[in-house]
Amino acid sequence: MNVNGKHYKTIWLEGSTVMMLDQNALPFEFKIFESRNYKETCLAIITMITRGAGAIGAAAGFAMAQAFLEAGKKQGMQVSDFGMRVEDWVFIDAARKEIEATRPTARNLFHATEIVYESGKESIQSAINKAQQLADDNIADAMKIGEFGNALIHDGSRIMTHCNAGWLGFVDYGSALAPIYIAHREGKKFHVYADETRPRSQGARLTAWELYNEGVSHTIVPDNAGAYLMSKGMIDFIIVGADRIAANGDTANKIGTFEKAIVAKEFGVPFYVAAPLSTFDMATANGSLIPIEQRSEDEVHYQEGPDSEGKIHKIRVSSPGSSALNPAFDVTPASFIKGIITERGIIPPTIEAIRKVMEG
Amino acid sequence: MNVNGKHYKTIWLEGSTVMMLDQNALPFEFKIFESRNYKETCLAIITMITRGAGAIGAAAGFAMAQAFLEAGKKQGMQVSDFGMRVEDWVFIDAARKEIEATRPTARNLFHATEIVYESGKESIQSAINKAQQLADDNIADAMKIGEFGNALIHDGSRIMTHCNAGWLGFVDYGSALAPIYIAHREGKKFHVYADETRPRSQGARLTAWELYNEGVSHTIVPDNAGAYLMSKGMIDFIIVGADRIAANGDTANKIGTFEKAIVAKEFGVPFYVAAPLSTFDMATANGSLIPIEQRSEDEVHYQEGPDSEGKIHKIRVSSPGSSALNPAFDVTPASFIKGIITERGIIPPTIEAIRKVMEG
Repeated sequence: MNVNGKHYKTIWLEGSTVMMLDQNALPFEFKIFESRNYKETCLAIITMITRGAGAIGAAAGFAMAQAFLEAGKKQGMQVSDFGMRVEDWVFIDAARKEIEATRPTARNLFHATEIVYESGKESIQSAINKAQQLADDNIADAMKIGEFGNALIHDGSRIMTHCNAGWLGFVDYGSALAPIYIAHREGKKFHVYADETRPRSQGARLTAWELYNEGVSHTIVPDNAGAYLMSKGMIDFIIVGADRIAANGDTANKIGTFEKAIVAKEFGVPFYVAAPLSTFDMATANGSLIPIEQRSEDEVHYQEGPDSEGKIHKIRVSSPGSSALNPAFDVTPASFIKGIITERGIIPPTIEAIRKVMEG
Repeated sequence: MNVNGKHYKTIWLEGSTVMMLDQNALPFEFKIFESRNYKETCLAIITMITRGAGAIGAAAGFAMAQAFLEAGKKQGMQVSDFGMRVEDWVFIDAARKEIEATRPTARNLFHATEIVYESGKESIQSAINKAQQLADDNIADAMKIGEFGNALIHDGSRIMTHCNAGWLGFVDYGSALAPIYIAHREGKKFHVYADETRPRSQGARLTAWELYNEGVSHTIVPDNAGAYLMSKGMIDFIIVGADRIAANGDTANKIGTFEKAIVAKEFGVPFYVAAPLSTFDMATANGSLIPIEQRSEDEVHYQEGPDSEGKIHKIRVSSPGSSALNPAFDVTPASFIKGIITERGIIPPTIEAIRKVMEG
């Protein structure tokens, strides 16, 4: 995506440093966070400096590569050298566990650590190459998702999306927003309703920021307004991203997605999920087996943003003394999903179709 | 309700001044707003210094009485004097229109202005008495709603509510929360999930504050978490308030109510509305005829609250440059409602049952 005339990826590797757009500072400040080792990258994933299914996958791959680099450095190895010592594998195995514990719902994370870990058995350079390739694949997949999803968008379309499965949620382009960017660049005229997506407001803060920068016509809507808009016939279809898709098509995505899918079904509004195959988890038979990350209640209690003079404050927005629940995801059963937009086409959310597309 | 050991109503009249708890300052500051004339009371209703179906009704009644007082004062009348001049009726009619334009969805508002206006034809004192009686009735109705609703609550009940239909939304006790307070005082052990209720967060700010002060076990939940909680079987039933109930039982209430009712139906969770008969609008045949107030998009973009040192800031919480929609209410069709808890019992949301209860 272009920001102030310059093209940026959301996350990339420079030497042994993972560079990432600081998504906690957006939309009020555009800055790069530099993560110098795998532990810093873990913390960046946990604190959501980088976030979104695809970006988490890329970050996890880079973190795994950083762990190999750190192990090799201790040993004085060249990156092209073959063969870690047993004690280095202890370090690397512990690092992998740590990386995988950061965001337990995200399938792309486990996909990335596994692939980079296996490549690291060859050499440190292989691990780095593989992490880089995963990030590059992420961009290629997003573009193909965008092309397939573009077919759903027509002049006059009114599209709702939840959370941010855009450029920021991936390495570039996004999943749910990729079709929107491609349709927009083709000159189609349409409108996007971006759910605010409390408690972290990725819709109001990140999706709105992306759409504004790309010049896509859009409106922020409170999450509560979904049924109102759909009951008035103001939404033609919904596209959301996914953090993990089970073998039967059940889809974990940002909290509130399931609620929106139920409302969409009530009004006959088609509900699409957009995700690369790296988000599918064939080892998880159905959605009830997907672990749901519970995050700090402070994300509900506090909000950060600038005052009228641009000074950033963190304020309490709930009654002091009360506690809050903060499940980060929910699981939308396959029966609520019209289709899944993948890099190999739009497929129905069925075991058979998913198995077929995964086998290539 | 008791605050710091002293009993307060939400709104009351002292001489010609309407005293109201400043609900925009809560939960961070407890202060009284003094409204010296009907125009100030209108502004207090518009800016939601006072809010909630019952409190709006009381405020509108007092504002109408203030208009009579102001007209009488110009003329040098005693409050007990009979007979306004024609020019005073012009003033009073204009005031009534102004009061009724403040919150167009709220039925209790129109109910109050009509009754107080008619009484004012007798004397200024009659208008004042009637406004006071409406406020007193509001308390009596709330207590009866509480008693009927109390039958739904058992040890172990897990109740969800949306927005604030509590003490603050009424003159005392509330509608949706009245059963909760009565059950709690009877010693029943249960838990309340309070929806945050964006964009104005009446759940997180006001309902949570009330429940905390009353010592009722509760948790704030993001509006997005409704389907998650209900899919896990964590909610036994939902009670919400109402701003206007059409003759067929269709119910306008805070934005997000309809969304929650759809999700509740999906999971077979009983969905109750609690409201006094003054909220019913027999002249409105069904929900599609209820006007929906559209509020400023700034309520979506900005949030106010204290920093860690207690200093209040107003901050931007959405991406600058993007616009937002802010419908204040939605309409839940009667078919989604299990029962309406009124001061005359729990009734089904049907034309017949409503007509019967309205006829007394």
